[in-house]
Amino acid sequence: MPESPPMSLPDAYEAFADHHRESSLLQSCASLLSWDQETHMPKGGAGNRAQQLTLLSGMVHRRQTSEEYGELLAAAEDCGLIADEHPAAAANLRVARRDYDRSRRIPPALVEEKTGATVLARRAWVDARANDDFPSFRPHLERIFDLSRQIAEAIGSESGDPYDALLDAYEPYATAEGIEAVFAPLREAHISLLDRILGSDRSVDVRMLHRDFPQRAQAALAREAGSAIGFDFERGRIDETAHPFCMAISPDDVRLTVRYERDFFNPAFFGLLHEAGHGMYAQGLPAKQHGLPAGTACSFGIHESQSRMWENLVGRSRSFWRWCYPKAQEAFPEALVNVAEEDFYRAINEVKPSLIRVEADEVTYNLHIMLRFELERALLSGELDAGDLPGAWNETFEKYLRISPDNDADGCLQDIHWSAGLIGYFPTYTLGNVYAAQIYEAAERDLGELEPQFERGEFKPLKEWLNRNIHDHGQIHPPRELVEVVTGSPPHHDALVRQLESKYLRS
Amino acid sequence: MPESPPMSLPDAYEAFADHHRESSLLQSCASLLSWDQETHMPKGGAGNRAQQLTLLSGMVHRRQTSEEYGELLAAAEDCGLIADEHPAAAANLRVARRDYDRSRRIPPALVEEKTGATVLARRAWVDARANDDFPSFRPHLERIFDLSRQIAEAIGSESGDPYDALLDAYEPYATAEGIEAVFAPLREAHISLLDRILGSDRSVDVRMLHRDFPQRAQAALAREAGSAIGFDFERGRIDETAHPFCMAISPDDVRLTVRYERDFFNPAFFGLLHEAGHGMYAQGLPAKQHGLPAGTACSFGIHESQSRMWENLVGRSRSFWRWCYPKAQEAFPEALVNVAEEDFYRAINEVKPSLIRVEADEVTYNLHIMLRFELERALLSGELDAGDLPGAWNETFEKYLRISPDNDADGCLQDIHWSAGLIGYFPTYTLGNVYAAQIYEAAERDLGELEPQFERGEFKPLKEWLNRNIHDHGQIHPPRELVEVVTGSPPHHDALVRQLESKYLRS
Repeated sequence: MPESPPMSLPDAYEAFADHHRESSLLQSCASLLSWDQETHMPKGGAGNRAQQLTLLSGMVHRRQTSEEYGELLAAAEDCGLIADEHPAAAANLRVARRDYDRSRRIPPALVEEKTGATVLARRAWVDARANDDFPSFRPHLERIFDLSRQIAEAIGSESGDPYDALLDAYEPYATAEGIEAVFAPLREAHISLLDRILGSDRSVDVRMLHRDFPQRAQAALAREAGSAIGFDFERGRIDETAHPFCMAISPDDVRLTVRYERDFFNPAFFGLLHEAGHGMYAQGLPAKQHGLPAGTACSFGIHESQSRMWENLVGRSRSFWRWCYPKAQEAFPEALVNVAEEDFYRAINEVKPSLIRVEADEVTYNLHIMLRFELERALLSGELDAGDLPGAWNETFEKYLRISPDNDADGCLQDIHWSAGLIGYFPTYTLGNVYAAQIYEAAERDLGELEPQFERGEFKPLKEWLNRNIHDHGQIHPPRELVEVVTGSPPHHDALVRQLESKYLRS
Repeated sequence: MPESPPMSLPDAYEAFADHHRESSLLQSCASLLSWDQETHMPKGGAGNRAQQLTLLSGMVHRRQTSEEYGELLAAAEDCGLIADEHPAAAANLRVARRDYDRSRRIPPALVEEKTGATVLARRAWVDARANDDFPSFRPHLERIFDLSRQIAEAIGSESGDPYDALLDAYEPYATAEGIEAVFAPLREAHISLLDRILGSDRSVDVRMLHRDFPQRAQAALAREAGSAIGFDFERGRIDETAHPFCMAISPDDVRLTVRYERDFFNPAFFGLLHEAGHGMYAQGLPAKQHGLPAGTACSFGIHESQSRMWENLVGRSRSFWRWCYPKAQEAFPEALVNVAEEDFYRAINEVKPSLIRVEADEVTYNLHIMLRFELERALLSGELDAGDLPGAWNETFEKYLRISPDNDADGCLQDIHWSAGLIGYFPTYTLGNVYAAQIYEAAERDLGELEPQFERGEFKPLKEWLNRNIHDHGQIHPPRELVEVVTGSPPHHDALVRQLESKYLRS
């Protein structure tokens, strides 16, 4: 098929697109300021930085909820661009319309009230966690959920479930019911798998992961691995931070962050693979659609599928370490000199119930998430009273993970999300794992077995397959549809369970 | 006198001030983006960064030249706030009015044309310098001076000299004639001083400055010195860059940059003292007036007086090294073990004509500047044809510095300024030296001899004196007036000549 000449689009569409791109460009300035805040900003800069970010986000919000933009959008919609002929343009209009209607439905006073409440809640949460004092945080939690419920009701949802209205901001078109349909069998399978692992008497020695790992060598190895899997350092960089994240200023300027622990190998290395997974997605988004929905990541869940795939499915595989372990031994001759590759592999894959989500292994991690999904739904619906959260947390924790925290700091106070007003965000972490497993199987269907490739340090086929099949689509498909297009099946727990069972029971 | 209660200012004034502060806040976002561009941005980020900066500077420009802002300004002026009662508010209105009128007089098309021309000129300059090819740069130089002349004519000036209209952007109220009145005797004194120094047969051994200075130790010593003289690292930081600068995001977030040469002690150490001088000015600006002219540096010349004072008058003094040399020897035991303090002092103060401005010593530096001032005036007036620049450069160079370049890359192509459209900027460097000398004498009048203090590592009295007498005034006084208020005399060459002669002839 000969390439068709570039089709010029109607002026009304271009006017809409220009407006949207300019808002994105302004937003990208805020992204750099946020990145700097978490990496380089001196302590004294905090006050001015808050003002800068408030100014920029206010400007973007006003632009994207203005009558003027609404008119541009409506005029562009009247051009009759249909998905079959103009998939990117049609997706841009579809997503822009949903975003516009959504934000226009929320009364500005309610947005402001919630912003104010989260500032107070965040402060209260920091203190409450430090002092293991849930009662002092409880009124803030109530207020956040109350305001979120009001916002959800203002937005509305097809199902009438307010949770769906919030979830939609992170995972467009997803519903709590649809997620629960995946999570219910997943939960059962995870608990059963965990019991079987705990029941076996194979013990894992992880002490070598806590030897001395000089930071320079950690940084060099992490960078080498990030580069090998396909992160482009001409269009990105790594910095240190307290709570690692990935921030894309543009597809050509993607910032990874990492936290080093001198006496623990895992955080920096696997953290970097994780962030590089996010980063390669950002670098792989289509440049032509930059600043528009079709040039933006599909959803939080799909983003997480990319980070989890490189961190876990690739980075914790036996074959990856067949390639990487000699490099690790060279980087840390003292720590790893007498450690066999197989022992190292088992150590980085230890499954062990623990209290803190961000430290959890591949198997127990999803149980942490499912617990939060359940509890935040109950808090939002009013089924669970905020005052009863600690009890409910500990009880469910015990049921899923066979242990339970003896204080709230290590329990229901551990995460920042609720204090920041992020409700409906947690399930996207496990959706990411679910998607990743399905996408990985689809990649093997196309590329053949991947592990022999990893063993040879060949990550390019998988990376380029992801570029073509996931990254390049931006938001052209909603997440559920993307998974279906790429894997042939809607989101489903099967692949993930199959992979975990095969890894942890049969090896 | 009891402190008067805070006076509330009229609403119309506050509305003007709010608008101005918001523009400054937006501008400060651009400042951070520029800092990042020169320090951390990956190569790939350049395209998007240019778009971000164009967007933000366009927004600031539109805000500050809008009819709406003009009305706010006029309404504020109608409040009758007089300088005796409200010095800061009156200064804010005075400076804002000048800035507004100035930018409203320049046709937007001309601004755009010049922006476009500088983009092309900058590229052409990079190539021309690399290839020592002045003819390829010549048409760009002509175009820049032609557009600058048109802009100057649009702005107008009291004297009718277009140079004054451009100069005013860097040194408000200064005139070419006024500067020449200071420069003429200064030029003569410098040439005579240089001849006397060259005529003496004392030779200086500078080889120890080119030994091995490991970067980590350079960074630590520079930071220690910066901290000792009073730069606050809780409200600032240091990063590496190719062409060092100081960027203030706010008085509480000031970024210094530095360039390390492993085999040359001077660039990082004296560069850091220089940038820290700028940085302490930025940190010392009055927080209450942040975002307004009274909270902004007085002029480029006054800014330079602060950097030059710490770099040269303090940092190259004998007493500074009495304090600092033991630290330097400890930092660089191999390089400095057998070097006597006096020999080191003489080496860092070597006077020797050289071709490149940014590498020049304290005495010859001003001759480099005066040459540029003279030539850019002649180019702007049309007295000198762009094609004759290389000849004029080399001839004047020989006259002032007793040597001359044998190629244009090391001659008239060495600086970025003209290609960037910065005309009228150069004289502020030497004005800075002139001001610094006068201010230093005034400080000694109030604080007693400073050198014995430096010898004991006491820099706080001078720093706090500068805080009170210079920094705290922002733009309340125009530069010439500030110098007069602080030193009792208008800008004058005497103090600088006195100090240089005393240092270089009598020691």
